[in-house]
Amino acid sequence: MSDPIEARVGAKARRQYDPPDSPSSVGWTRAERVRIADAGSPLRLDCGRLLAPVDVEYEAYGTLSPERDNVIVVAPALSGGSHAAGWSADADELGRPWEKTRPGWWDDCIGPGKAFDTTRYCVISASLLGGCYGTAGPSDPDPSTGKPYGLRFPMVTVGDWVETQARLLDKLGVERIAAVAGGSLGGQQAIEWGLRFPGRVRGTVVLAASASLQPMGLALNVVAREAITNDPDFRGGDFYEPGPDGIIRRPDGGLRAARMLGHISYLSAESLAVKCGRRLQDRDEIGWSFEPEFQVEGYLSHVSRSFAERFDANTYLYITRAMDYYDAAVWGDGDLVRAAERVECGSLVVSFRSDWLYPPEDCKRWADALSAAGKRVTYIEVPSTYGHDAFLLEVDAVTEAVREFLGGL
Amino acid sequence: MSDPIEARVGAKARRQYDPPDSPSSVGWTRAERVRIADAGSPLRLDCGRLLAPVDVEYEAYGTLSPERDNVIVVAPALSGGSHAAGWSADADELGRPWEKTRPGWWDDCIGPGKAFDTTRYCVISASLLGGCYGTAGPSDPDPSTGKPYGLRFPMVTVGDWVETQARLLDKLGVERIAAVAGGSLGGQQAIEWGLRFPGRVRGTVVLAASASLQPMGLALNVVAREAITNDPDFRGGDFYEPGPDGIIRRPDGGLRAARMLGHISYLSAESLAVKCGRRLQDRDEIGWSFEPEFQVEGYLSHVSRSFAERFDANTYLYITRAMDYYDAAVWGDGDLVRAAERVECGSLVVSFRSDWLYPPEDCKRWADALSAAGKRVTYIEVPSTYGHDAFLLEVDAVTEAVREFLGGL
Repeated sequence: MSDPIEARVGAKARRQYDPPDSPSSVGWTRAERVRIADAGSPLRLDCGRLLAPVDVEYEAYGTLSPERDNVIVVAPALSGGSHAAGWSADADELGRPWEKTRPGWWDDCIGPGKAFDTTRYCVISASLLGGCYGTAGPSDPDPSTGKPYGLRFPMVTVGDWVETQARLLDKLGVERIAAVAGGSLGGQQAIEWGLRFPGRVRGTVVLAASASLQPMGLALNVVAREAITNDPDFRGGDFYEPGPDGIIRRPDGGLRAARMLGHISYLSAESLAVKCGRRLQDRDEIGWSFEPEFQVEGYLSHVSRSFAERFDANTYLYITRAMDYYDAAVWGDGDLVRAAERVECGSLVVSFRSDWLYPPEDCKRWADALSAAGKRVTYIEVPSTYGHDAFLLEVDAVTEAVREFLGGL
Repeated sequence: MSDPIEARVGAKARRQYDPPDSPSSVGWTRAERVRIADAGSPLRLDCGRLLAPVDVEYEAYGTLSPERDNVIVVAPALSGGSHAAGWSADADELGRPWEKTRPGWWDDCIGPGKAFDTTRYCVISASLLGGCYGTAGPSDPDPSTGKPYGLRFPMVTVGDWVETQARLLDKLGVERIAAVAGGSLGGQQAIEWGLRFPGRVRGTVVLAASASLQPMGLALNVVAREAITNDPDFRGGDFYEPGPDGIIRRPDGGLRAARMLGHISYLSAESLAVKCGRRLQDRDEIGWSFEPEFQVEGYLSHVSRSFAERFDANTYLYITRAMDYYDAAVWGDGDLVRAAERVECGSLVVSFRSDWLYPPEDCKRWADALSAAGKRVTYIEVPSTYGHDAFLLEVDAVTEAVREFLGGL
């Protein structure tokens, strides 16, 4: 997904950001870190490798009920960390100054009276394994060498993310969750929850996500990874250490190109036409150069630059690979309906008309499989022009759908 | 456009390639080279710079009528050179061995009895200025230094290409042409012909092309150029000379990534799903690596590798920039209908339903402008699933439309 701030540029923002003292904000937040695996009980990953230690960073909003039955897990997408709502009180400590200038990535939907109402639910959001926001990832030291893992970090999957969330809940003494919700890769985590832990979840909220990424999405990920690994500073993923000249350089050029492409896939032709059109920036006439001249160029340059400042290039490789690999049908030996038979909870599946990364017909396939397997499922296609980013921007439609769904659980 | 051979992979090929001795083939071909500008009469480009010398490479199929009134100019798209039909007899001399293994890029439509019937018409196809196939471009020596131009080559435009074609026709003694035809960037050259030389053309055939590239296309070009210029071997475009270690290295990694992205934009989600789907290649199970595992990855790797062997990275920059810049509306001071008022010839505009690079609604805008300006125009939307490449693959539909159009001129 796009950075929510960037996604707002040019979009008719449905609401202003809630300041921390707003009654609908979760206010100031702090991330927690919990060790969910150590040498004695390593995490067994889908790829077969054992990983330890594994620390998971998470944030929690709202109060855990005495029965510990009101948890909603909010699963992040590619760029999302644990900071999903409210205003970070520990951004400086965590070395993430950008978190001070805006609320968490799904603040529009998490808070008192919002879609995920923190006066009723305890919302928990954990950073992804393989990521760069506090949960174990390729930029962390490999205990066997003391140096950053780089590409020696094991491959991670959507299933592994769900596994880390489940282990985190074990540590918190939560057996069964009210719901798991997410958009994009987060939506695939919601699907996987219902398949991997059918007895532990009462409802899944799957936004702008399908049971597997379609081939066009695979293709875009290939190009993104090519751009990163071809960067002169990538050096096989070992860019955390100084180069031969003693200077640390990150493969920012490649990561920027990858992010530009990702960002394009989150927009729609319509939304990009509204946002930038073919307008020139800061000029009236063509400049006959390869410098940015069109607003599209300036816009992509801006969003990719700010992304590269706060993201790890290896993480981009790992998370897009997890996106490639995910296929819910493996739970049914390739048959999606058979897979869906495992599900015990109710499901809400929401797609967005102009989303070409996870197109409506793909999202609907999961809803249809659930239905064919006799499961409770609500499918909604929102007639949005915002592309994939719509799951962040169509706040009213998402709020209404989620509220009704959670109310009916 | 895709390489036509590659585009065929997985597509239901409408016909086999015609061997050189087939009655419907133009047979063996040789390229010609003509100097259209020299120091005494340089070419004035749209960017304002003067260029000399300028040699243009072209091929001609069919016989020029005594009245010199039966010429059809076929305008190449991004990757197309002068070799549009038949089998190259001079591939080795020209250093283009790949041309020996297949006929010209639009052989399906050029030849005796084909859409552009060489028993009636003399079809002329010239390589693009700024390209790398015999017409002046960034890999040619700059007469002021004796070294390859690189990025010191002037910016070129669709208008400049039409200008070089017109100068070539001057040299050949052809004042008025029967038609100009092309797909994609070639289609934009056809549009431009009708605007720049309204008195010199009787008909334009515009396939899979619009009056200006939509913002999503601009965005994809930004990423493609980023991938090239960020390649460690790009060196500011001066990659023709040996590097500090005395070895010549071309920015093939960046060019491959750019081409992958271009290729993706020529396909549709549907055609890629049919061609590759989510199938693994040469394996039954996921390999948990960043190596190519999906057919999509192998396919993109293959097509981009063969492209990088026969294309120049600087040319990719120049031609995509020309694609960005083109806007037929400048002939009407920004008003497309006013621009269309200049046109004196009949026009055929053909779009393809699943083309998301030049979407039908964009192509139709040009047809609508012609219509609003009171011009003769036929607009057809072909219900193809092949994406942008459909202009090469929907041979029957294109042939039928072109034949009827040329017959009515």
